Amino acid sequence: MTEIAVLGYGTVGSGVVKVIETNHDSILAKAGVDLHVKYVLDLRDFPGDPIQERIVHDYDTIVNDPEIAVVVEVMGGTEPAFTFSKRALAAGKSICTSNKELVARHGTELQELARQNHASYLFEASCGGGIPIIRPLRTSLTADVIDEITGILNGTTNYILSKMIDEGLEFDDVLKDAQQKGYAERNPEADVEGHDACRKIAILSSLAYGKRVDFTDIYTEGITRITSADIRYARAMKKTIKLLAYSGRKGDQVTAMVAPYLVDREDPLYGVSGVFNAIFVHGNMLGDAMFYGQGAGREATASAVAADVVEAARALGTGVVSEWDPEKQVLTDVSSTRKAFFVRVQGDASQIAKMEAVFGPVSLVEAGVDGEYGFTTRVMTEAEYQACASQTEGILGMIRIREKGEAC
Amino acid sequence: MTEIAVLGYGTVGSGVVKVIETNHDSILAKAGVDLHVKYVLDLRDFPGDPIQERIVHDYDTIVNDPEIAVVVEVMGGTEPAFTFSKRALAAGKSICTSNKELVARHGTELQELARQNHASYLFEASCGGGIPIIRPLRTSLTADVIDEITGILNGTTNYILSKMIDEGLEFDDVLKDAQQKGYAERNPEADVEGHDACRKIAILSSLAYGKRVDFTDIYTEGITRITSADIRYARAMKKTIKLLAYSGRKGDQVTAMVAPYLVDREDPLYGVSGVFNAIFVHGNMLGDAMFYGQGAGREATASAVAADVVEAARALGTGVVSEWDPEKQVLTDVSSTRKAFFVRVQGDASQIAKMEAVFGPVSLVEAGVDGEYGFTTRVMTEAEYQACASQTEGILGMIRIREKGEAC
Repeated sequence: MTEIAVLGYGTVGSGVVKVIETNHDSILAKAGVDLHVKYVLDLRDFPGDPIQERIVHDYDTIVNDPEIAVVVEVMGGTEPAFTFSKRALAAGKSICTSNKELVARHGTELQELARQNHASYLFEASCGGGIPIIRPLRTSLTADVIDEITGILNGTTNYILSKMIDEGLEFDDVLKDAQQKGYAERNPEADVEGHDACRKIAILSSLAYGKRVDFTDIYTEGITRITSADIRYARAMKKTIKLLAYSGRKGDQVTAMVAPYLVDREDPLYGVSGVFNAIFVHGNMLGDAMFYGQGAGREATASAVAADVVEAARALGTGVVSEWDPEKQVLTDVSSTRKAFFVRVQGDASQIAKMEAVFGPVSLVEAGVDGEYGFTTRVMTEAEYQACASQTEGILGMIRIREKGEAC
Repeated sequence: MTEIAVLGYGTVGSGVVKVIETNHDSILAKAGVDLHVKYVLDLRDFPGDPIQERIVHDYDTIVNDPEIAVVVEVMGGTEPAFTFSKRALAAGKSICTSNKELVARHGTELQELARQNHASYLFEASCGGGIPIIRPLRTSLTADVIDEITGILNGTTNYILSKMIDEGLEFDDVLKDAQQKGYAERNPEADVEGHDACRKIAILSSLAYGKRVDFTDIYTEGITRITSADIRYARAMKKTIKLLAYSGRKGDQVTAMVAPYLVDREDPLYGVSGVFNAIFVHGNMLGDAMFYGQGAGREATASAVAADVVEAARALGTGVVSEWDPEKQVLTDVSSTRKAFFVRVQGDASQIAKMEAVFGPVSLVEAGVDGEYGFTTRVMTEAEYQACASQTEGILGMIRIREKGEAC
């Protein structure tokens, strides 16, 4: 029997207990490991809940119990999760976590500590919720040189954008609705400003390109400036708007960005709506691949954590960690990346010649929005776009246009 | 260094050599294995090709060379692939294969032989080409009870159907075009009659449900009876037509079927077009997930084989095999499975009442096809449908309607 402790009996923690107990026999039959949750660490008590007898309030009970082989860290945030993780690993216990904040900030050193102690440090649930993506990157796409990862990595923003598009609503109204339904947090900043997606693309990029990508280096824009007018133009172009977390590699150069993008109908990411997430990967041999599923939710996320627990349990005494270099991956300045841009300007379409004088050839987009017009530019660098935009009065908004294999 | 022999220098075999050599340094850096192709077995010579000096014509050279640790079997067909695989495994060499025919027929005993000899038997490329699906089922979805797998598993038929739908063409014309482009074989029966998809869903179902599913037990229909009239009705219903390989589990009951289905716009499988493949998986905790990518093609398939070679090379001396029970999974008779049906009948829509008298409530589908009309039935068992259909004259065609979680 493999004894497990779960840190935090919130949404994901209770889900992990549920998955491990509900599917205990199936896991034993399929994977040959006999999992048992011995402790749950929480500040609260849960009288009446069958978990109550296993609740502990003192982490020492867990870290000092030699029977505990795997610690599930689903507390979120940096502290005390970081300290608890270090202590567990130092004691030779494996960690399985959904804590993208901690993985993005300290994953590299926690992996190193795991390696030194022949323990595992696994974080499948940190990116894409239930979608298997970390393990496929680590064990399936090993023969490929990955040159692009583009993800819809945040369910809250994808739900908001889907709802704005389907029902023609404004951001603020949909956000309120999402908060009422529990799809958005009361303080939604981490989601709607793109910070959550930024941490996730940093983790995925570190794995795919083999060197530590620091999330604080990634240019990040959220969706708060997207309006129903943008949606009307997107419809007119037969495109949709998605918050994409992108990273690409060309030779030694790596670039990364989180921003809303216009996505074409032919793109496999087009149809990913509501709270679903998807991760598009391009490999130099594999070509295009995509992984799709529930990016959040109690059971789906817990399913991914539990799969990590199974792997850790099967690797007791040796340990499994990801292979990325602690050396920091320097990111190419976003200003040199190339793409086309969609721009909305005050005025009317008869003034398009003024735009062509600045931006070069553009294509008018007709969506019948009063007092303004829109156009798409040729492919240019972000720096060129900024230079053109600075010479143009009355710009109301800009959205980048996704192109697969967006160059560094 | 891990020495490899490749059996067959055809499309996939030459692709495997290309992947291993092109990405050698990246594989070494990421996975820590130093792969080298020592021999390629082929009846032919390849004068002028750098591979020529490594071509051997006698399998004994390979099987008797103690340096060879991994044998890549990409010959296709049952013999001599089966004999060669057995000899390699008996000698403690691992096998990595794309040969779905052989895996579906003899995978169970080859895995057992691998286990006995502490070697690996891996077949990621046998289903879904480059898409990582076998390894995720084996190592990522371990905490879930999988209750449905539905795949678009054959690129040729998906290309043909996509082209029929996009351009309103007839099956025979598109098939000829696909043959000219090399997307369909001269003898297309294995693809268009669904046999290829059938073998693949048998392999995936064995893995997902843990017992050997015999492909000869799976009810299989191809796409040869789909016409441009069907396409017009599908359009009218805002659906598309896909050849789906389906299997589902409910309690101890497992059912499986390969047939064309009408697929709704909301379904993640809807947008999978052309030569792309996708595998939809539902787990009791995971919920919906989908894996998408290139189901065929030289580099994509070779990328999957090479990923298996990496795994085999990392597991030398222990071996990796899948965990399914050699005991045969008895499949529930398809006649008791439930779904709605779309039916085309000679005559005109004014006769719909006659249909309701037989099928119960139906919905008329208006597509303006001369001399006939179409309708959808309520959800019923296949047996009920057959009973109704046998009382009805003038049925021109029937297509099943996909419903996620189609019951056993």
